[in-house]
Formats: sequence, C-alpha cells, structure tokens
Amino acid sequence: MSENYRQMWTELGLDLKAHDALLGVLSEAYQNIFMAQDNRPEAMSYFDFVMSEVHGLRIKELLDEKAAGRKIIGSYCVFVPEEIALAANATLIGLCTGADFATEEVEKYLPRNTCALIKSAFGFKLGRVCPYLETTDMVVGENTCDGKKKAYESFKDIINNLYVMDLPQVKSANGKALLKAEYVRFKEAAEQLTGVQVTAESLQAAIKLVNAKRAAMLRLYQLRAADPAPISGLDALLANQVFFYDNPERFTASVNKICDELEQRIKDNTGAFPAKMPRILVSGCPQAMPNWKLPAIIETSGAVIVGEESCVGERGVRNLVDESGTSVDEMLDAIVERYFKVDCAIFTPNCDRLQHIEQMAKAYNADGVIHYGLQFCTPYLMESMPVQKALEQKNIPCLRIETDYSMEDMGQLKTRVEAFIEQLK
Amino acid sequence: MSENYRQMWTELGLDLKAHDALLGVLSEAYQNIFMAQDNRPEAMSYFDFVMSEVHGLRIKELLDEKAAGRKIIGSYCVFVPEEIALAANATLIGLCTGADFATEEVEKYLPRNTCALIKSAFGFKLGRVCPYLETTDMVVGENTCDGKKKAYESFKDIINNLYVMDLPQVKSANGKALLKAEYVRFKEAAEQLTGVQVTAESLQAAIKLVNAKRAAMLRLYQLRAADPAPISGLDALLANQVFFYDNPERFTASVNKICDELEQRIKDNTGAFPAKMPRILVSGCPQAMPNWKLPAIIETSGAVIVGEESCVGERGVRNLVDESGTSVDEMLDAIVERYFKVDCAIFTPNCDRLQHIEQMAKAYNADGVIHYGLQFCTPYLMESMPVQKALEQKNIPCLRIETDYSMEDMGQLKTRVEAFIEQLK
Repeated sequence: MSENYRQMWTELGLDLKAHDALLGVLSEAYQNIFMAQDNRPEAMSYFDFVMSEVHGLRIKELLDEKAAGRKIIGSYCVFVPEEIALAANATLIGLCTGADFATEEVEKYLPRNTCALIKSAFGFKLGRVCPYLETTDMVVGENTCDGKKKAYESFKDIINNLYVMDLPQVKSANGKALLKAEYVRFKEAAEQLTGVQVTAESLQAAIKLVNAKRAAMLRLYQLRAADPAPISGLDALLANQVFFYDNPERFTASVNKICDELEQRIKDNTGAFPAKMPRILVSGCPQAMPNWKLPAIIETSGAVIVGEESCVGERGVRNLVDESGTSVDEMLDAIVERYFKVDCAIFTPNCDRLQHIEQMAKAYNADGVIHYGLQFCTPYLMESMPVQKALEQKNIPCLRIETDYSMEDMGQLKTRVEAFIEQLK
Repeated sequence: MSENYRQMWTELGLDLKAHDALLGVLSEAYQNIFMAQDNRPEAMSYFDFVMSEVHGLRIKELLDEKAAGRKIIGSYCVFVPEEIALAANATLIGLCTGADFATEEVEKYLPRNTCALIKSAFGFKLGRVCPYLETTDMVVGENTCDGKKKAYESFKDIINNLYVMDLPQVKSANGKALLKAEYVRFKEAAEQLTGVQVTAESLQAAIKLVNAKRAAMLRLYQLRAADPAPISGLDALLANQVFFYDNPERFTASVNKICDELEQRIKDNTGAFPAKMPRILVSGCPQAMPNWKLPAIIETSGAVIVGEESCVGERGVRNLVDESGTSVDEMLDAIVERYFKVDCAIFTPNCDRLQHIEQMAKAYNADGVIHYGLQFCTPYLMESMPVQKALEQKNIPCLRIETDYSMEDMGQLKTRVEAFIEQLK
C-alpha cells in the first residue's frame, strides 16, 4: 500500500507500528491462503486489488465522502439496515471483528469467556488499528446476543458515538412492531446525524441499490451449485466479507463480472476444484474479515465449500426488500418485512434457520454440513445441537466445530475436518 | 423422611435409587453446613423441618391440592408473576436448579459451556429426581438470557407442558408494553389450564398474599443491618430459597416469627456471629436450592453475609405491587410496574442494579461486596466488570468470583475469599 496513506492513518489516530504489524500479517495470510489457490476466476483480481488496498483506497474514499459532507455509519450486525443509512445520505460500513488484537487491554473490559468476535471489536479500537472505525460518525450496536448487548454498555466508554438498536427475541406481532419502531428511530437518528431527511425518492433508490448488491451475491451463490464448483468457498467468502464495506455500485458490478465468468466456466465444465470433490456447506457464526481459518482448513483438506449459511453468507443477503412501496412508511414496512426474516439464532424458536440449512444443502448439492460455532457464542452453540440432530435424521452428515480466532487448535481442527471429509467420500 | 413417601415418589416417576442418593447428599450437606452453625435463631427450626421434609410433606401437599382440582405451575425465574397464577387457582413453585445431576445425559442436549443453573434444570428432569417438576401441570420458561432462551427449545423435547414467556431487553415503553402483553397472555394460559377466570377479587387477594410474603422477607433483610448480625447469611438464604416453593401463608408467618425473634436479639445485642466481624454483601447470580457453596465458604472464613443482591435475595422480593387497583386491568398494570423494576442483568442498560448494590452495601453496613458469577452466565459476568469498577471508585472493595456447582474449586475459592476478608479487617 502506498506510503501516502501513512499521513492519513496518523490523522485517524492509528497506532502506526501496531497497524503495520497487522497489515503485514494480513498480507502474508492473504498470499498464503488466497493467492496460493489454483484455478481462481480472473475477475477475482478485483478483490485482490481491494485487499491490497484494504486500509488504503477505501479509507481515502470514505474520507473524501466525509469531506464532501456525507456521514459514515459503522455497524457490527446485518440487522442494521443499509437502505435507511443510504437514504439519509450516509454510508454504512461493517466494522472489523475477525482477528484478535490487544487482548490484554480487552480483558479489562470483557470477561475472558467472551466470544472472539466481540473481543475483536474492542481489540481493534483499543489497539487503534482499524481505520474504518476511526472514520465513523456514528457506530450502531444492537441487542442481539447477551454478549454484544452487555458489551456495548462498556464499549460506550471507549467510543464516543455509539448508538444502540433494540431487537426482538421472538418473531411475534410484538416483535415486528419493535423492529419497526427501532427502524423508525434509526431513521431519525441517521437524519439527525446527516441533516438530510429520508424521502420516498431517496429510500426507493437506496432499496434498489442494496437489492442489487444482494442479488449479485445471490447470483454468485446459485452458481456454486455446479459441479465442478466454479469458485472456491474462500473466494466467495472473501466477496461476502468485502460486501460489508465496499462502494455498493462498484461491488455489485464486480460480483456480477465474476458471475459472468463463472457462467462461462460452468458451460465449459471447468471449476476451481476438480469435479466430484466432497462438497461442504458451512453453517453458523459469521466469519468476519480476516477470519479465514476454517475455510482454509476445509479447502486444503480435499473438499470444496459450496455455501455459507451465515450472516457473512446467505443469511445476510437473501430476501430482497419489496420495491413496490411508494411512501416512506410503506418502504419502511417492506424493509421491516425483509429484515424480520433474518433467521439469526437470537430468535426463539428459530425453525426457519433449520429449514434453510436443509434447503441450502440440497440446492448446492452439499455432501455434509460443518457447523461453525465461535467459542462462548451461546445462541449458535445451543442451536447447533438440534441442528445436528435434525440434519443427521435426514442423512446429512454434520460436524460441529467450536473454535476462536487463535491458531492453536489448527492441527486438531484439521484432523477432525479431514476425518469428516473422509466419511463423505 | 417417612417411608410412606416412597410410593408417592414412585407414582411421580422418580428414579428412587438416584433420588435416595440425592436426598442423602442433601441431608449430609444440610447437617454439615446449617446444623453446624452456632447461635441460630430458634425459629429456624421451621426451616430445619421444611428441609427434613424437602421432597416429602410439601410434595404431598401439592398432590393434595391437585386432587382437589388445583393446578401446579413451575417456574425458573422471578419474572413469572405468582400473583397471576394464584388468582387463577394455581400454585406457583420455583423449580430445582441448584445442583449438578445426570451431566452426561444433559450434555446430549446442551453444550458443555452452559451455565450450571440451566444444566441443573435439565439434570433434575433427565435424572428423574425432582418431585416438584413431576407435580407440575405447566412449566413456564422465559426469554431472559440467551442460555435459557435457547435451552427451552430443547427442554420442550423432554417435558411436555412447557410454556415460554417472552421478556423485553430494554426498559423502554415498548419493553413495558411487551411485558404487559406477555402477562395478559400468561393470565389467559393459566385460566385455560385451571378453568378458573381471574377476577378482581381473586387477583387482589393474590397480590396481598404475595406482597405479605415479600414484605416478610424485606423485614428479615432489614434486621440484618444490625451489628452483631442477628442471623447468618446461610439461614437468610435458606429462607429465601424456601420462599419459592413453600405454602405462602405458612411461609410468611414463619419468616415473621423469625423476625420477631431477631428484633429481640437486636435489643439484647446478641447475634449469630460476634460483633465487628467483616460484613459481606453477596451480589450477582441466583443461588438456587441447594447451592450453598459460596456462603458456606464465606461464613466459615471469618465473615458474615448481611445481604444478597440476587434473584434469590432482594432483587427477587423488593418492590411490592401497588394494592390500590380495583379492576383486573388496573391490577395487571400494577403487577407490570412492580416486575418491570426487577434489575436483572438481561436488561441494557441496567444502571438501577448498580445503584441498588451501592444502596444495599450502605444500608446493611457491608464492608465489601463479593460478586457471585456462574461460569458462562454472560449477562452477570459481563456486568460484574463495570460493577466492580464503580464500587471500587466508591471505596467499596469488591471480589469477583466465577464458579459452578462442582466442589473442585472449593480450596481455591476459600483462599481467595479469606484473602479478601483479611483486607476488610
């Protein structure tokens, strides 16, 4: 990355030495995990470029947007509606939660038995290594799991622009009313932040923009049903990780370009891996950038990942917002309808998710499911047990993994994953 | 306990051998922990009797009530309003969650990293050793923490009469409306169970009955402010544990009888322990019957416990329901007002709890606070960190304990507790 960015990072208050170390590790991991793959789609070069500029060009773009009067809103969850942020003249970006940082400092705020994703949010702030977080004018937390809900109470002590969104726990009429009320409140907060009122025109345009982005990802997912798989799970996951912070129009065009290439690959009967390889659906907790641990293990163990049932995956992007509304209120209702379908394990009961895992396994011709649970993530770890039972009753093999962001269990995980893949052959 | 109960336990489907073993352990623990204490109030003999009949007489009473057409509702949380159950001609009992049982069976349903309290609820059912659970016509679960919320999804596979109550996470207008809606729904479910409609008369009588029970406990708490402490923390905790399943009228009379005796003790300047002993407030997770581990350690280490800031303690019983309502709806509103004040760590933010801990420490002349956290209880473990910081800023020493129901860490805990008490002298 260009030396020109050092001044920008300094002005953002980053710890340059720690940040250099982070970028070094990131770059090395990217080389070893992504660039080492064979038969990548040519159009993945866009994402190689994005990654080479991960804390550079995109940060500069966001700072340029801010200079032009736009606001930046950060989020940690797919329940924060990008449509509303965009319509209020703000850019929504997903914030870094995929690596351990400043663990000793973090454990002054959070118990050791806290999931790695939550610790990571604190670590990037306390370690001063996340330029995205430092560009934000507002950060939206949300009452999803107990861990995040309670952690935001301490997070407000280390960031000064935290806004917390309440969320329902049950998909009842009361639950939907709460989500609507919270989205209206978020709209008002975004309007207050930007000084720009959401109009029917701006909201409709935002809905279309985000729908197009989601539709491109869904198109990419569907192409992965082919055998041989036209793209690796790692590359598809990378696109899904970049989904959260890239410029929406450019992202959509780039993913569609990949899809065009994949369609040609399917016609040519070529793929990222040979045909008839064991095919894995990964289901469970989000794998946030730069958490590539499990897919790297799976795809170097003789299997290909054909889908992610995850917030950084189909759970996060499926179901488009109905575009037929004409008033702001109608469109807000349509947005609520779409987000209320998100089958996160915070909901009880959460039968839709189980059905969707089965549907995905079938649609993508998966031979088995690996359930990815972050250690101490109560909702997904609890739900993984009935998920495994139900899948096995339908003769879909399921391996439950519980891990964190450390590399200490790599050997053990690889042994378990290899044994699981072996039984799928 | 009388041999006559064996037939009753058999008919309830208990595993007699396992149940005998449980009663044996319980009896031994009670002898060693409670009967070994010096200077107990004479009126504690009632609770000695209750404990000697813990799975006997009270179970027989409940079965007699059932034979007379009354229904039994079980619960695991202080958010389930006893007033409504009573008004619908049902008896509400708190269910056993204070000991490990059938752990291997439990871990077929719950991840190992689940808090001991939740595992215990499953263990008592799977091990068939809880006669209370087996007398219930309905069991009410509730969406408090992620652990319980998600565990009830599996619990329904092992009990056939589970009803789940939704709860808010924020003390907003929306949150209060949800609580009201859920209490109305619970009233209707209780009415359907019993076939008895809640009337203004029955609800008013129930409110008075439960208020009297709570008032007796509050009276007991206030008397513990005296130095020397007129009653041990263990005995006060025992009364609070029995609160959840005893006959309400008899319980209230028995606690008031103890209070009369304690008032005399205070006049006589006598106590359960010598004057000027270090005084501890225990704050945090509930200590459900028969979980006596931490108070037994504290009170054999040279300190006396003068209060419990816990659901099995002041959090569970403070704030009476306003008795001035005349219609069912007014009374339901008053009930909602009272329960909405419960400062459980599931709420965000939960500033009331912090204030209340400080108030209790002052009111009961505590020299220090021991925060009792159950391992893997995210809400209380997370909240314990800002609690400790705030207390220490006010020069109130605070020790954070994280433990489970096993006895393996007894030595380590005792060392830490002794060191903490030493610094209070």
